[in-house]
Formats: sequence, C-alpha cells, structure tokens
Amino acid sequence: MTQTVRILLIGLGNLGRRFCDLLAQKGPEVEARYGLRLVLVGAADSRGSAYDPAGLDPARISALKQAGGTVADLPGVGSADRTAADLVGTAEADVLCEASPVNLQRGAEPGLTHVRTALQRGLHVVTPNKGPLVLAYRELHDLAAQHGAQLRFDGTVAGGLPALYLGQRDLRGATVTRIEAVPNLCTGYVLELLGDGLSWEEAKARARAEGVLEADPSFDLEGWDAAAKLVILVNAVMGIPARLEEVDRTGITGLSGADVVAAREAGRVYKLVATAERRPDSRADLRVAPTPLPADHFLARLGRKQMGVIYHTDIYGTIMAAIDEPTPMPSAATMLRDILDIYVPGGYPVAFDRRGTENAELVS
Amino acid sequence: MTQTVRILLIGLGNLGRRFCDLLAQKGPEVEARYGLRLVLVGAADSRGSAYDPAGLDPARISALKQAGGTVADLPGVGSADRTAADLVGTAEADVLCEASPVNLQRGAEPGLTHVRTALQRGLHVVTPNKGPLVLAYRELHDLAAQHGAQLRFDGTVAGGLPALYLGQRDLRGATVTRIEAVPNLCTGYVLELLGDGLSWEEAKARARAEGVLEADPSFDLEGWDAAAKLVILVNAVMGIPARLEEVDRTGITGLSGADVVAAREAGRVYKLVATAERRPDSRADLRVAPTPLPADHFLARLGRKQMGVIYHTDIYGTIMAAIDEPTPMPSAATMLRDILDIYVPGGYPVAFDRRGTENAELVS
Repeated sequence: MTQTVRILLIGLGNLGRRFCDLLAQKGPEVEARYGLRLVLVGAADSRGSAYDPAGLDPARISALKQAGGTVADLPGVGSADRTAADLVGTAEADVLCEASPVNLQRGAEPGLTHVRTALQRGLHVVTPNKGPLVLAYRELHDLAAQHGAQLRFDGTVAGGLPALYLGQRDLRGATVTRIEAVPNLCTGYVLELLGDGLSWEEAKARARAEGVLEADPSFDLEGWDAAAKLVILVNAVMGIPARLEEVDRTGITGLSGADVVAAREAGRVYKLVATAERRPDSRADLRVAPTPLPADHFLARLGRKQMGVIYHTDIYGTIMAAIDEPTPMPSAATMLRDILDIYVPGGYPVAFDRRGTENAELVS
Repeated sequence: MTQTVRILLIGLGNLGRRFCDLLAQKGPEVEARYGLRLVLVGAADSRGSAYDPAGLDPARISALKQAGGTVADLPGVGSADRTAADLVGTAEADVLCEASPVNLQRGAEPGLTHVRTALQRGLHVVTPNKGPLVLAYRELHDLAAQHGAQLRFDGTVAGGLPALYLGQRDLRGATVTRIEAVPNLCTGYVLELLGDGLSWEEAKARARAEGVLEADPSFDLEGWDAAAKLVILVNAVMGIPARLEEVDRTGITGLSGADVVAAREAGRVYKLVATAERRPDSRADLRVAPTPLPADHFLARLGRKQMGVIYHTDIYGTIMAAIDEPTPMPSAATMLRDILDIYVPGGYPVAFDRRGTENAELVS
C-alpha cells in the first residue's frame, strides 16, 4: 500500500536545493518505512520552473543549482515563462514546499501568495519561510481549515530543532508561562567572535565566509529575524495572537566588541535572546535584546552552530532543547519532517513494525 | 462536540496520585481547548479499587491517598475484593493509565498483565511503567495493532521530557546513529552530592530525604533503571529490537566519593550515562556506565533535578533536550500528554483556533 505524494518545491536556494538532495537520498527509505512515495513534480526558482507529472529528478536539479543554473533550462520540462506563481496556481500536486526567500519588508511576497493560493486549492503547505506565518498566522490557519488542508512550518524557528512540535504538541495540556530562545545561528556566532576579540568588521566577514550571515545582514543583526521567530513561537505555542509590532526589539549592532569581552571577563555570555512572558490578561510581553546571560544559563552554553529554546510550564517543569547544526541540512530536513507529520500522523508504531520485521529476533 | 474519555487508573502512588490532581486541575481546560471530557471511572491501589461509570472525584482520591487511605474504602464505589486486575478486565472504559510500581524482577507484574488485558479488550494504554515495555516491547505493539488500540509510554524515559516523542516522531526520516542519555534523576543527584564531598551514606540519606531515591535504591544505583530506559529508547527511536540482557551495565556503586571529587578537580563531571551506538549490522551496542564527562558536555551540565538526552542523526544534526523537574508532576503529566496524543493526533491548529477565538484581535 504505497501512497504517492506529489510535491511542488518553490525556491531552490540553500534550503530548497538541500531538500532535493534529501529527496534523492531518503526517498527509497521513506517509501520502505512509511509507505510514502515522495515525487517532486514541480520546482521553481527565480528564473522559471520545471514541471513533470511523472516526476523530476531531484539529484539533477540539485546539481544544476549548485552549478548556478536554473530549472527553466531543463530540457522538455523547464520553462522560463511559467513562474513559481503559475506552478502553484495550476500544477496537479498534493503538497507545496514553500522555500522562497524570506521577505518581511515586501509583505512576505512572493511566499505569502504562494501559500494562500496552495491552501485555497486544498494543497497541504510545508514551509520554512517565516514571512507568511509572521504576517498572516491566523488567516493562513483559517484558510487551511476551510479547505481541508494542513499547514506545517517547523522550519521557521530554530532551524532543524523541532521547537514548534515540542511546544505545540508535547506541551498540550500545559500553560506555557515563559519562552526564552536563541532561535537563529547568526547573532550568537557574531557575538562569540566579538567576545574572542575580533572587530565588528572582522566578525561579519568571518560569519559571511562561513555562510552564517546573509549578504544584507541587518535583518539578523537588528533582531528582526529573532522577533519574527518569537512571534511564530508565541502564536503556535502560547496560543496568543502576537504581532511583530508588539516585539520590543533591540539588535546587537549597538554592542561594541569591548562590551562583549568585558561581559565574558565577568563570567557572562552575550546572546541575542528572544523572550515571551505570558501576562495575566492572556497576552504576552515580547522582547528581543542582547542579554549578558550568566555562564551556566542553558542558552549561554550554546555553541557557535547551535540554537535553543526553553519552555517554562505549569505542569511539565522547564523543558530545554537545542540543536547543533553544522550545515543547513537540518533546516531543509524540516520539510521532510513536516510532510511525514501530515501523512503519518500517529505513525510511530508503524515505523517500528515495518523495520522490526526485518529482524528475526524479538524483544519478548 | 465534546468527546468523553473514560479512564481507568491503576496505581495511586507518586505518579497516580498526581495524575488525579492533574485531572482535577486541568479537566475543564482540556475540555474547553480540545473538546475532551476526561472522566476517571475507575481507580485501583494495592488494597482494592473504586469504580463508578458516572465518574469518580479525582481530587477526593488524591486527598485520600495523601492521608494514607485506599480507594477500596470509598463509600458506595470502593471495594477491597475487586482488584486492579478485575477492574482492567471488566470495567467499561476507553483508556488504561497503568501507573503501578515498576517491577522488572518479577516479570514486570502486575503491570504487564494489566497492559496485555487492556489491549486485548481494545482499550488504549498509556503508561509510565517501564517494566511491560522493557520485557515485551514488540509483543505489546503487535497486540495493540491487532486490537485497534493505541499504546503510549512517554513517561517511561526521562520523566516529563518528551524524549520518546522527539525521537520517534520528530526524527522520522532520519537515521539515529547514536543516543546518549541521563534518563533518570537519582544517579546524577547522588553523584553530585558525592562530588560535593558527602560520604556515600550521607548522599544516599539526603537523596532519600529528597524523595529522589527509592527505599531499595539498588535498581537505580546499579544502573538497571538507566538500562531499562535505554532499551525502550533504542526500540522506539532506533527501531532496533534491543533487549535488557544486551546492555553492558555498570552502576555507580563502584565509584568512591574520592573518584568523583578527583574528576571534578580535573574539570570532569561524573554522570551515569546510557549510550546506544548503531552498528553496521542494524543492531546497537548498548552501554550504561559512570562516565567522567568533560565539563562542557551537554549531559555534564545537567543540574540536580534534571535529565537529558542527545540524538545524533544523519540529517537533523545533533539534537539535545533536557528537563528540569523539581517535583514528579511532569512525570505524571506524561499520561495527559499521551492521552492527548491519542485523541488529538494532529490537533495543534485546533488548540490555537479554540483559544484564538477568545481574542478579538487577529494577527493578520
């Protein structure tokens, strides 16, 4: 009983390309373990798209993108005229993976339109793109419910760490009173370099060379990225309809290297911390600010390529989680996690059973 | 659209009693948020049981147990003749919460029989009791599948930390190559006291006074508890049918206080670490041993009332999670988590929607 899942992938940058690698690498295993055949039927980048109901070759697309090409050039299936929006609006598919670049400044477009269109067509949507969720969290959930579609966005917060699943699902029944998070890599990395004595220019250059910092780093360094992630966390985990404008936001650019070094000498570690505190009126105080954490604070201990989150709860104590993510692969893999969450919702024993039968020996 | 869930609770010790508190405290909220009315229809302790199809009062049962009483004495509904096994075998119910004491020595009884009986009757089973899972992991899963019942056991490993959900569900699609865990509180607590210079006798007395150590502590101190939890982790998360006999197990009783102090002076922290390493032949090497971890190791940093787990994976990087659990409430609350996982499987947007409607303001 194999079920075919037809996937549209929009955006073939850092995450989209790696998701193609994942489909190539993990496809057979996912089919064997979960009975799901993941077929990439459409893919789009900024120059055009490719579409083939019989399935595109994800490994070939990844290679093409690494070589600087476009799927528009794929013989027989590529087109420079059919845009990503065209593909989302017309292609036969089951799931949209929306991995186009985050763009909060321009109304989260084109991602927001892609997500809306797909949900209206009844496609499930899986996206690591923060923009649409930050700007239209509730609208998109309502739209999904109206059209019987699922919306998953685990990759929007803290890369490959399942921070949202942990908070939404495993803390069901609890009241989350406080969230503290270092939800991205970039600022922690720069702060650590500053603490090591590098100048701002040196630190930015190093982070950029490592691929941790975008060409225009202000989105990260001014705290917008952390604020956007905090808004999603608060909506999803606290159930509070928070908005970006409510975040009291301070970036790290106001810190000097000397500040960071002095804090370190005093046994403290600067991190750009995003905090949400539930108020008695069922709203939350939201704050993003560089914070000199005591050295034994969970978030102070995060390494250079690590992100983390802390949930303070009424009945589950305090739960802390972190990820070490040396490459963007875990962030890309959240799309696979989300797809499996949609199609194999209660499927843990299934996973065991299918593999278990390969073993002659039983536990009992 | 409220659905009634009729619950049988077996075992009214540390966890069972607190689960009664939770039902009393959280019942109305769970009904409002998830449309589930949780009704405790039966409860049993070692001296008898109580049964009322209209619902027992969980707050009253908790008070009774704290005062040293038995549910057998509850007027009209209690009986010293109807045992826990009778209740599980005959009572009309939807879910069995099996929280009787762990007993690996005696074939995990009576818990194993309770779980088997309930699954055969088609009841869902939720249990923080390690015994049945360690001794009959596969058999119980097969039994559940045959009878269309669900089996959940998040509370068997690392208290209230959703270590199993994280590993089973959020790492779907990944290969977990290695697991490292400090899956219980007790040994870490004793080791820390030894490192502070207390003698073994003093450390045990303190841990016992704090309620961290059982009257017969050998199950914990000799590493059996950690080994049992490791076996469940490996079955559930790695999909490998591991057995307790395969664990290379060393407890902490062979360590002297001087060993722990010397390690601390050398910048190392002793923890009783449970490790599973996937082998090329699709089995795993399992080990429980006191380990002098470097001070910056994730598990070395766990505090006195903390437990943690690390998953090393192929596509999700390294994921680390820990819980600070000052009381056993989070462990008891895993039964609520498990029930919600059964009855609200994909229910994250639902949770938001129901609460969101209480807020006039929308995100978008």
